[in-house]
Amino acid sequence: MSPWFDQVRVVLVRSRNPLNIGAAARAMSNFGIQKLRLVTPWEPSYLGARAAVGASDVLLNSEVYGSVAEAVADCGLVVGTSAVGERELQHPLKVLEEGANEMRRALAVAPAALLFGSEKFGLSNEDLSHCHWLMRIPTRDAHISMNLGQAVAVCLYELVRSGAQIPMRDAPAMAGAAEVERLTQVLFQALRESGYVESVAEEAAMEKTRRMLRRLDLQGNDAVALTGMMRQILWKFRHPEKPE
Amino acid sequence: MSPWFDQVRVVLVRSRNPLNIGAAARAMSNFGIQKLRLVTPWEPSYLGARAAVGASDVLLNSEVYGSVAEAVADCGLVVGTSAVGERELQHPLKVLEEGANEMRRALAVAPAALLFGSEKFGLSNEDLSHCHWLMRIPTRDAHISMNLGQAVAVCLYELVRSGAQIPMRDAPAMAGAAEVERLTQVLFQALRESGYVESVAEEAAMEKTRRMLRRLDLQGNDAVALTGMMRQILWKFRHPEKPE
Repeated sequence: MSPWFDQVRVVLVRSRNPLNIGAAARAMSNFGIQKLRLVTPWEPSYLGARAAVGASDVLLNSEVYGSVAEAVADCGLVVGTSAVGERELQHPLKVLEEGANEMRRALAVAPAALLFGSEKFGLSNEDLSHCHWLMRIPTRDAHISMNLGQAVAVCLYELVRSGAQIPMRDAPAMAGAAEVERLTQVLFQALRESGYVESVAEEAAMEKTRRMLRRLDLQGNDAVALTGMMRQILWKFRHPEKPE
Repeated sequence: MSPWFDQVRVVLVRSRNPLNIGAAARAMSNFGIQKLRLVTPWEPSYLGARAAVGASDVLLNSEVYGSVAEAVADCGLVVGTSAVGERELQHPLKVLEEGANEMRRALAVAPAALLFGSEKFGLSNEDLSHCHWLMRIPTRDAHISMNLGQAVAVCLYELVRSGAQIPMRDAPAMAGAAEVERLTQVLFQALRESGYVESVAEEAAMEKTRRMLRRLDLQGNDAVALTGMMRQILWKFRHPEKPE
């Protein structure tokens, strides 16, 4: 097994069906991917899947998070899976084969997350705003939406298939998702306080901001520097009475 | 969709779990493969899967057969899927990517079947003896065996992934599985009546014979000719009293 296998995080967002959670974990185990993270799963379902006979180590070692931001905090790349057509896409979309290729390159330098949405609704716009780009399994137009466990199996197969030999590289200092999210929050606060963001459209503006910052592919030091600038701007908003 | 998609037969042998049958049908529908055949499925399970809400057209149009031989009768190529390691293999084994490539080439000239065994026991030696070769999904050694629905999804993804553009070719007259099986039966009868086959080891000898004949990749006319020869030999066994 290649060392980058350990850098993959499979993130299931709001999964409801214990069979799907178990199936996702089993496919991960089949393909040698260990790190399963669940964002606000339906609790009886998650506990049921863990309690099932034959639950894999992957499932027993899985972690639960309260938000997508926390679940991907250590990742340099966040990829969403999508059965396109359901909504207007505001992200670059790659077919699985090409996307897996790009993920492998990213995994050689930092952890990367692969997000799967709930069985019924997929990933929300808020979930997607945490993603750098989206990936789609090439199913046929007339029946585009795959079962969750099967989608996980197919994606991991493609990711692992031809990539077992990729060596790890020294990590260049790219910004992790937590850093970018920190910047997103402070920039957004600044936009709000500056009046740039109207309160009515706040949610959409936040998602737009989040997507934009992820498109930048910031280096770590740049993210820190930008965050510092935004903090300063914020400070200024709050202390208008004391010009320096 | 490429015309050869219609040449693929997915054959589930002795499936017991309605969820797996439904999942296999769903993956087929996702990837545009229509012909599902079941060999002696556990009946309540099959009926249950068909009755399920959201059962796909693939499942509703599926056909049930009493034996592998009947289920693959129209196929020029029969490929078994196997989680190797469980038994000594007496077939050539190809990794999924290579196997899918070869299947696509065969599908351009004649129907081909992809066999999946039962959840618990996989394909039996008798099932395997109908196969030309075996295919394996590259799972890791420590957890080799995949869930049935996921295995179907991964195999069909790989089969369809890069092959959508392959044109159909004029079929050269390769022998279909029914023809080869006819030859197998008559050759075996001849072997039995000749005393070549001991009655104790009959089943193993039958499987060995079946495998051998499939390795030959017979053209249709050759299969017919060989069958005729064997019939003549059989006739001779039965009419020793009348030398010509």
